[in-house]
Amino acid sequence: MSRLILVTGGAGYVGSHTTIELLAAGYEVVVVDSCVNCVAGEEGKLPPSLVRVQELAKKSLVGFYRVSLTDALALAGVFEKHRVDAVVHFAALKAVGESVEKPLEYYQSNVSGTLTLLQVMREAGVHRLVYSSSATVYGAPQYLPADEQHPTGAGLTNPYGKTKYFCEQVMQDLAASDKEWRLVSLRYFNPVGAHPSGRIGEDPLGPPNNLMPFVAQVAVGKREELSVFGNDYDTPDGTGVRDYVHVVDLAEGHVMALDKAFSKSFRGYASYNLGTGRGVSVLEMIEAFCRASGKPVPYRVVGRRAGDVASVVASCSLAEEQLGWRARRDLQEMCEDAWRWQKLHPNGFRSCQ
Amino acid sequence: MSRLILVTGGAGYVGSHTTIELLAAGYEVVVVDSCVNCVAGEEGKLPPSLVRVQELAKKSLVGFYRVSLTDALALAGVFEKHRVDAVVHFAALKAVGESVEKPLEYYQSNVSGTLTLLQVMREAGVHRLVYSSSATVYGAPQYLPADEQHPTGAGLTNPYGKTKYFCEQVMQDLAASDKEWRLVSLRYFNPVGAHPSGRIGEDPLGPPNNLMPFVAQVAVGKREELSVFGNDYDTPDGTGVRDYVHVVDLAEGHVMALDKAFSKSFRGYASYNLGTGRGVSVLEMIEAFCRASGKPVPYRVVGRRAGDVASVVASCSLAEEQLGWRARRDLQEMCEDAWRWQKLHPNGFRSCQ
Repeated sequence: MSRLILVTGGAGYVGSHTTIELLAAGYEVVVVDSCVNCVAGEEGKLPPSLVRVQELAKKSLVGFYRVSLTDALALAGVFEKHRVDAVVHFAALKAVGESVEKPLEYYQSNVSGTLTLLQVMREAGVHRLVYSSSATVYGAPQYLPADEQHPTGAGLTNPYGKTKYFCEQVMQDLAASDKEWRLVSLRYFNPVGAHPSGRIGEDPLGPPNNLMPFVAQVAVGKREELSVFGNDYDTPDGTGVRDYVHVVDLAEGHVMALDKAFSKSFRGYASYNLGTGRGVSVLEMIEAFCRASGKPVPYRVVGRRAGDVASVVASCSLAEEQLGWRARRDLQEMCEDAWRWQKLHPNGFRSCQ
Repeated sequence: MSRLILVTGGAGYVGSHTTIELLAAGYEVVVVDSCVNCVAGEEGKLPPSLVRVQELAKKSLVGFYRVSLTDALALAGVFEKHRVDAVVHFAALKAVGESVEKPLEYYQSNVSGTLTLLQVMREAGVHRLVYSSSATVYGAPQYLPADEQHPTGAGLTNPYGKTKYFCEQVMQDLAASDKEWRLVSLRYFNPVGAHPSGRIGEDPLGPPNNLMPFVAQVAVGKREELSVFGNDYDTPDGTGVRDYVHVVDLAEGHVMALDKAFSKSFRGYASYNLGTGRGVSVLEMIEAFCRASGKPVPYRVVGRRAGDVASVVASCSLAEEQLGWRARRDLQEMCEDAWRWQKLHPNGFRSCQ
């Protein structure tokens, strides 16, 4: 019998791509999503992202529940209805800038929400979890590439990053207190790209918070030009360097992390970087996107943003050794796939309602 | 008209002593306490600690509610019923060892509970809070005496300490996001002693977690001997050195912090150490307690405890400068007052039911 995975935040960007890979890998999936941050679609129906997930996977979800993680009763109801074997936990607010404006909402959604989820899981006897963490837990890295031994929690400049760090601490302490738990935290670097079909992709409801969706919106003509925040960093071309990773690679990483959580030899808590190990500057990204789209991407260099660092690049050898995972898609593929999605859906999932 | 203060955890040790000082200072007080960690007394009546608080203050509470902070609806009901001007927030689980065994309970009670309180306060238009934090946020101090500039959050070895650190981070971010907030965090060193009347004091329901109640229970004959955890530390007599502070001094510190929260010139977030600035070793404490009680306190030196550090002593000049607060009661007074309470109540508040 197939294992049943509950995916929180499964209607979102990384969540929807991961759900496809989980279905492809033979897992059954139940999705819980509050839909506060995605196009929800009609009441009582699947959000458009999940309609397409089912199309692409040629397989149906076992269930979908429009439930917030802070609603312990409703969440417990989902666990009562389905015999869940493990949870992949994406549900969270994720806009760094907004987290500075609305810290309480971020702490409640991301920290209290995770605490409630863990409690409901324990009550249901479910002890396996793959958690959506972030390289932001490293703060301004003391050395590069940042490996999993790099200190976490120091110099975090925004509530979003702190919520990820706090949840990792909770999971570590929980695993230390009770040997039943199998908790895997995945520290994403910069997820970009889209499913190669162009049928699902990143769909920020407000202004994008990250570079690539911004670039894509300029290329498609939704925005006039791109702001490049500083070209006087200590990097080859002066612009900020980040480790971009294709969302389908990330999604595969979650399947492999889940395999780890199910492996007999694993107990406790582990965290893994998911990146490519290759740094890409803002200008390189723009150039690659122009090449992929055949469109110009006008940009203007403006001042540095507070809190930004020159470079962040992942060491990903631990994920390769212990999960057997490696990012296989390069920058060109990231740009081509992002462009395909953007071109077909200039207004994201609202384009298909 | 008097200002109305809501005290969470007001039936507990520091909470009950502070409630007396608040009443003495002319504040009206409503207490919210879940009574999970104190002698609750009969259903529908005040817990014995608060009965005595009223006797000692010769003044009644405006209200008492047996409510957990994680029950947002019930808590909001208290704010609807009373026009609260500020909150003094003690309610939390506080046993370091237990927090390692039950991390989820600690994070939910202390972190989610505080988040819910802050949200309910905001909805009620209440923006002044004095928070019960701890010197444990400094971890193993990098220098002594530890002042408020000392880094926090690094090397925290237990969930209890992390919950205090997380809540301080939340309050800082909240104050930065909205200028309405006036948040004062008080970092206690080691609260000991009791009200000089001997009518209220520390009443650990399980085995004591701290030195002085242990010493007191040995002196009163409830326990045979005291374990001294290590006498090979780099301290004058080899035993651990801590900064003990009389609970009535602490209580006065809360009143002064509240005055600060009401002062026109203060906005945002501030934290203050509350200690004496004087280190006392375990052996000094035992000797002082023997002198105060006239009883022998047999002890046995055993191995060090994991996570213990040699010395922790506070710098308290900031509280003196900005709050006008200074600890006035010395070690002898701490021991005499603790002994009076212990002698009159060998079984704590259960002695008076």
